[in-house]
Amino acid sequence: MPRLKWLIACTLALLGSAALAGPVVDKPRSSADILADSHAEDWRTIDPENLMVIELAKGRVLIELAPGFAPQHVANVRRLVRERYFDGLSVMRVQDNYVAQWGDADGKKPVKTAQKTLPAEFFRRFDEALPFSPLPDPDAYAAQTGFTEGMPSARDPVTGQTWLTHCYAMVGAGRDNAADSGGGTELYAVIGHAPRHLDRNVTLLGRVVQGIEQLSTLPRGTGTLGFYEQPNQRVLLRRVRMASDLPVAQRPVLEALRTDTPTWQAFVEARRSRHEAWFAEPTGRIEVCNVPLPIRVAKK
Amino acid sequence: MPRLKWLIACTLALLGSAALAGPVVDKPRSSADILADSHAEDWRTIDPENLMVIELAKGRVLIELAPGFAPQHVANVRRLVRERYFDGLSVMRVQDNYVAQWGDADGKKPVKTAQKTLPAEFFRRFDEALPFSPLPDPDAYAAQTGFTEGMPSARDPVTGQTWLTHCYAMVGAGRDNAADSGGGTELYAVIGHAPRHLDRNVTLLGRVVQGIEQLSTLPRGTGTLGFYEQPNQRVLLRRVRMASDLPVAQRPVLEALRTDTPTWQAFVEARRSRHEAWFAEPTGRIEVCNVPLPIRVAKK
Repeated sequence: MPRLKWLIACTLALLGSAALAGPVVDKPRSSADILADSHAEDWRTIDPENLMVIELAKGRVLIELAPGFAPQHVANVRRLVRERYFDGLSVMRVQDNYVAQWGDADGKKPVKTAQKTLPAEFFRRFDEALPFSPLPDPDAYAAQTGFTEGMPSARDPVTGQTWLTHCYAMVGAGRDNAADSGGGTELYAVIGHAPRHLDRNVTLLGRVVQGIEQLSTLPRGTGTLGFYEQPNQRVLLRRVRMASDLPVAQRPVLEALRTDTPTWQAFVEARRSRHEAWFAEPTGRIEVCNVPLPIRVAKK
Repeated sequence: MPRLKWLIACTLALLGSAALAGPVVDKPRSSADILADSHAEDWRTIDPENLMVIELAKGRVLIELAPGFAPQHVANVRRLVRERYFDGLSVMRVQDNYVAQWGDADGKKPVKTAQKTLPAEFFRRFDEALPFSPLPDPDAYAAQTGFTEGMPSARDPVTGQTWLTHCYAMVGAGRDNAADSGGGTELYAVIGHAPRHLDRNVTLLGRVVQGIEQLSTLPRGTGTLGFYEQPNQRVLLRRVRMASDLPVAQRPVLEALRTDTPTWQAFVEARRSRHEAWFAEPTGRIEVCNVPLPIRVAKK
């Protein structure tokens, strides 16, 4: 395809950069180079107790939960999963450039040991012991943005709050108008531009680490807020399990790039300033939701 | 559905806000209120000479071109449309959280009166006569962001440059490594979080104003950079026309909210600070790609 114009600007594809003229020592390393040179200790295995596995007809969606930010919601979601609350429920809302949402469309399924609602966990307190790898660039929504425990986050030194940010693929707990009316029975994932005005307005509790395209490609609902208008448009949740409860042969084992290492810092810097041959303007800045969080399948 | 937890946070749905207690005079107007109260002069009819109509099997994608920012590219795209260059070509690349791209997958189709390549139009000069409705909040990528001629944009008073920003649904001209290797034969639309590091690296030339879901829901390509691996996965462009060339009965007539009026300012302010009942934290800030650009079908 010699005449094809490739838009060579990778996000998660993380390609090797094109060769540059000049001595090798002068060539800035690309993010792909940095990943290729990374060591085992730059990665962490995602705890199977924090890995939620949703099976749809066309494939799996894997979500890493964030108990450090939303301990009560995460514990409740584990309980919901283990009492089979989600099995047979559905994705009932898909709003373009916004969210896909799943739960009990008919509002009739009772919980057993889990809670229907919980106090909000919109933010947590931070102290210097909590790892936070800041980004140096300004942000429209927060005093500081960065990464904590592998998740995109923000913090405000004045209020002492830190919180997860509504980047693409982040997962939260839908709620009614009352702040404590959510609890995890209804969940959503961001499938569009980061709706950061939801930060500190909803409890975020994790991030889709594999299979987001199972949600992002679903037909958009034509009802108000993107709800499907017909029950037969809903997308069945066939089976939802914690990875730790799956037989070993079925259990996904994923590794995430740590966000508290020199390798991470180099990776972010390589994404801030793009020296791959395609870039005319290296930018030299980055916004929290444009930093990819590399995931790989663990070697057996 | 009394127990259903609705995530009541509208983007383009632009719902009426829930009733608040207290005197009506104290209630801040929501963006929906502002649109409902808008006048005819707050809207502009999209020029059919700037409206590109792409017909896919499942529906239309309508793109407003931006001749003020990319005059040569826009003129060339009109020429390509009029010589039927795009008819029978395809969407051949869909990368999740990034772009959908269309053009000549086989690289064999000749142009007639149009150009294959053009000098880059990554930015334009601005002066005080050029309307620019700034946002007051900081931005990771630019000194100032705002809206010009109905499009999300940024500018830098130091360099005197202004440019379109890579928000969701923006359309650009794919290119090879050379800055002048694009020209509009291959186009892409943003279908994920704004890849703002592409700003001033690619010529943006318009915005999808209707039908972005026709692109955003397409299956993701499994090849490098999201290219479809099999020719039969490509999505046919059945017919591509300028709206002005369509018979009146087939011609879409859309209106866009003007971005240089007091109504626009009020609309943006209502989106910056969310006083609808659902919001626990009104935010009080906004980022350029989170400001919706309202579009409506013109009354006959």
